[in-house]
Order: sequence, then structure tokens, then C-alpha cells
Amino acid sequence: MTDIAMIEAAAERLRGHARRTPLLSSPFLDEIAGRRVLVKPECLQHTGSFKFRGAWSAVSALAPEVRARGVIAFSSGNHAQGVAYAAKLHGVSAVIIMPSDAPKMKIDNTRALGAEVVLYDREREDRDAIGATLAQERGLTLIKPFDEPQVIAGQGTTGLEIAEQAAEVGVTRADVLVCCGGGGLTSGIALALEARAPGLRARPVEPEGFDDVTRSLASGRIERNATQSGSLCDAIVTPQPGQITFPIMHRLCGPGLSVTDDEALRAMALAFARLKIVLEPGGAVALAAALFRPDRIAGDAVIAVASGGNVDAGLFRQALEIHSA
Amino acid sequence: MTDIAMIEAAAERLRGHARRTPLLSSPFLDEIAGRRVLVKPECLQHTGSFKFRGAWSAVSALAPEVRARGVIAFSSGNHAQGVAYAAKLHGVSAVIIMPSDAPKMKIDNTRALGAEVVLYDREREDRDAIGATLAQERGLTLIKPFDEPQVIAGQGTTGLEIAEQAAEVGVTRADVLVCCGGGGLTSGIALALEARAPGLRARPVEPEGFDDVTRSLASGRIERNATQSGSLCDAIVTPQPGQITFPIMHRLCGPGLSVTDDEALRAMALAFARLKIVLEPGGAVALAAALFRPDRIAGDAVIAVASGGNVDAGLFRQALEIHSA
Repeated sequence: MTDIAMIEAAAERLRGHARRTPLLSSPFLDEIAGRRVLVKPECLQHTGSFKFRGAWSAVSALAPEVRARGVIAFSSGNHAQGVAYAAKLHGVSAVIIMPSDAPKMKIDNTRALGAEVVLYDREREDRDAIGATLAQERGLTLIKPFDEPQVIAGQGTTGLEIAEQAAEVGVTRADVLVCCGGGGLTSGIALALEARAPGLRARPVEPEGFDDVTRSLASGRIERNATQSGSLCDAIVTPQPGQITFPIMHRLCGPGLSVTDDEALRAMALAFARLKIVLEPGGAVALAAALFRPDRIAGDAVIAVASGGNVDAGLFRQALEIHSA
Repeated sequence: MTDIAMIEAAAERLRGHARRTPLLSSPFLDEIAGRRVLVKPECLQHTGSFKFRGAWSAVSALAPEVRARGVIAFSSGNHAQGVAYAAKLHGVSAVIIMPSDAPKMKIDNTRALGAEVVLYDREREDRDAIGATLAQERGLTLIKPFDEPQVIAGQGTTGLEIAEQAAEVGVTRADVLVCCGGGGLTSGIALALEARAPGLRARPVEPEGFDDVTRSLASGRIERNATQSGSLCDAIVTPQPGQITFPIMHRLCGPGLSVTDDEALRAMALAFARLKIVLEPGGAVALAAALFRPDRIAGDAVIAVASGGNVDAGLFRQALEIHSA
């Protein structure tokens, strides 16, 4: 099970490989939110999202003879790129099973990072069966996107950095809002903060209508999303919280928050104008909650993890068109 | 005169106030350039450009009783915002003289950062006379945009960080391409590198047709631009190199490079897609040269300073529309 020792060991393995992202801020965002807003821009991480941390952590933790046979992952995009690049840098092969309707840029990037991409039809094919067959035939190790202790440990290194960087700017009590799909990043950050910054509290943020984690935290048991399609926030829509991540979030996290697709687009436009960073919708929901849900947050400061920036140019232009004024 | 001791003193004054920007990279950019590309994203600096460094350096170096009377600056935008915010954080007033045709966003931001903005007509009014009158009436101190030793020292702190960060990733011999207007950033970086990383060499990059620094370096004496209008790169078009900055650049810099507006827009689209950062045209010319002038650069690695990201949403959308494919 992931604990602070595993997270610190992951941080050691990531040193010199993953990027230490800065903590950004803008007086213009503070004014909108009515409190100090600190943003952890994981869009600046290798491959454009925090997923590289978990992928590197998991791939680097494998025994060399196991790693040498290669890895396999299921992903609609960000985990795919993280695993592909971590495998490439380790000099081993990666097979990524992606839905055929994943954003084209994410498919192209995954291929360009050296992975073999196998596309499947979400409606008609069983991705688990495809993956199991390939894994068995080639002796590949499955790198799960979130419900895997070494992946959670890798994502948790984001929390170690937040604990240090927030203290440097005098913030020791605040909510830490985290864009949340299966809960790997949220649970990893929660574990790191528990040990290193107990005054900071992780809270998941989800798209409205896809708030399985928020509802699960409220009811105390794993709840499912009614559907998985229809959100712009493709990166963070998952069927339900993980079997490993949920108990961690239930023990440590504050209540979940949710925002609309339009609020995510507005947060993207503000991150463009005020922080000069590129966010994808699913990577902008935590910032959106920090800016547009002030009454649901307590304290003088809030920290928002901006988890990814892998967005097609067309959708980004649309966000700027709708919301820049 | 600015020297390494002044730059290090400026770095001390900037500590905890200016942001230490990271050094970014992408295998996709390396492939385009045919060598390793490291990018120093000063768009992530406070107020969206490196100008905050020089402004903070100059304002913080004033005697308290002088500073208390306020400061004044001439600027079309980025220096304006840097001085306005540095003054605000010091709790003193700032008057900024801006041309009435400066980008609206830069005028709005300068006002929102607490400065009194005085607009003048470039064609018909004498900004120096307007400024001199105001400065005398109110006892304001002029903060020049580049030809001022404490401003150069502040910009030079970018070079101290590049020297450290490049060494951390194993790069000790490379050209450091710098977006260049009057030469404050270029000369400051050149001085820092001379002392701290002598294998790194600063080189100015300018818009084609506005290459006064490149021509001045070639001829050995200060050359002027024929015109100051007609470039998308408004942030870095100046009449001629500075009286203080030019001798420093002449002694230390390699030959200048220039790129077209279209290449700057293409570099903006690639920085969006591959680094997840927002650049303005004038802040993208060094990256454009790193990517599109491979034959003019020597060595296995190149460092590009991305100097600013204060771009209107409309122009940014245009860059993505033309160049994302």
C-alpha cells in the first residue's frame, strides 16, 4: 500500500527525470476568487500532464528483467503518453490500448513517443480482453492508470512539492483542489500532505454530471457515473473511483466539488491570460472551482492543481473565443 | 556599470519576489531543431514577461525616501506592467506613459496593476517632454526600460538561473538565443554567462527588417531601424541598441539572428502544443530561431529564452489557426 515512504522513494527515482513544476499566481486571479490562488501547473510536466510522474514511478520500480519485456497500458490519452515516454526513456517497448475516439492529438503523440498504439471500439470491443491477450503473448507488464500503489506514489510526489512550495510562500492552511478521475493524483497528494503539510487538505474536483468521487465521498461507498460520454473533460471521466484510491480519499479528503464544462473553458481562458499556461478542460476543473466556487472553500488561500494541457488547438481556440473579453 | 556583483546583488533582492522559472524541453522540439532545445519560459514570470526582474531590481535599489515619491516609465507594454507591479508591491505609485496604439490588453493590465496610465499619440506628441514634466512636478524617478545598470542587472538574473539549470541537465556549451529589443535582457544574460557559464554564449534574435542589434554587432557601431512600425513583435521593436547595452553585447555576444513574423507565429503554435506555454510574437523569436535556423547555430544543444506571453486572445487564436495541423 502506498505510504509516505513509498512516495519519497518515488521522488528519489523521479529526481532528474520528472520536472519540478513551479507554483504560479496572479493578482487578477486572486481578485476573482476573493482569496489568494496558487496554481501547480502540471501541464508543464513532461508529456503535458502529471501522468508522467506515476508512469515513471511504476516503470522505474519494475525489476530490470521484467521491465525489459516491455509494458502495456489502457488510456484515452494522458496516461498513454506518460507510459510511452517513461518506457522510451528506459529503452523498453510500450503497447498502449486506446479507444478509437480518443483525441487525435493524444493518439498521434503517443505514437510519436515510440509506443505501439492498438485502437479499439469502445462500443463493440472488450479492451481488457485485447490487453490480456497481448500481455500474455509478449510478457508485458500492465501499468494501471490509477489503482496501482507505485502509480499513486508517483502522483504523490506532486503533493511533496506542493507542501514545500506552499510553505515557502507562507501558506500552511488551505484546501488543495485536485482535478480527479480515478483518484490516483488526488489520493497520492492526500497521502503526501497528511505527512508533510497536515494543514493542507486535498479535495477532488470533477465535471458536473460525472461526480462519482464526490458522491462516493458523501455516501461512504463507491458510486458509479451513469454515463462516461458527454463531457469535454475526457481526461478525468472514469466509471468510478478505484478500489485502492477510494479508501485513501475517504480517509483524508475534504468534500468534492464540481464545475460545468463552460466553467472549465472559462478557467482555461483565464489561465491563458493570467498565467500564460495551456490547460485542457479536464486539467482546468480545479482552477475553475477555485475561481467560481468561492463559497464552497474556506480560508485565505486556495491551491489548485492544473493537471494537464493536452488540448487540441481547435478546442483551445474555442475556449478563447467564448471567454476572452 | 553592471557587472556580475551587481547581478548577484539583484538576485538577492529578487529572491522570494521574482519567480525562478523552470527550463522546459520536448522531444518533439528537439526533432524539429535537430538538436536538444532548452527553453527558459519567462512568460511565466510575474506580469507575463522578464521585465518584472529589471523593474524589481531598479525599484528595490532606490533609496527609500526617493522610492516613496513614486516612479515613472515609458513603455508600450511589458516594461509598463513590470514597473507597475514592482511599484505596487513596494507600496509606491507609478505613472506609465504609453502610446495610445499599444495593445489594449497591455494598457488594461497596467492600469489594473495600480499604475496611472498616461496615453500619448506616437505621431504628434513628444513622450519625453510629457514624462519630464510629470517627473519634475511630482518628484518621480524614471525607470528606463533597458539602458539602466540596475535594470540590466535584474534581467541578468535570468542568466544566473540559465547557467545553473543548464549545468544541471549537462549542457555547458551552447548558444543562448535571446529575444532582443533594446538589449537589456541580452546584455544582462551575456554578463551573467561570462562569469558563471563561459561555455554558453548569448546571441540576440530580432524580427526581420527590425534587426538593428544584429547589424550593429556586424558593423561594430550603433545602427538604427528604418522604421518602428509593421512588426507583430511589438515588444521587441526599438529604434536602436542602447548606449550602455550595446558595448556589452559587442564585447560578449555572438552574431544576431532574425526571423519572420510568420516564423514567430509558428513558434507560438509549437510552444502551445509542445510546452503548454503562451508566448507573444516578440517573446517567441528566440525559439523560432532555435527551431528554424538550425544551420546558423552550432553544437548539440541550444537554449532559447522565451521572454514574454502578453498576447491578445485574437492574435493567439490566429497563430493556432494558421499553424496547427
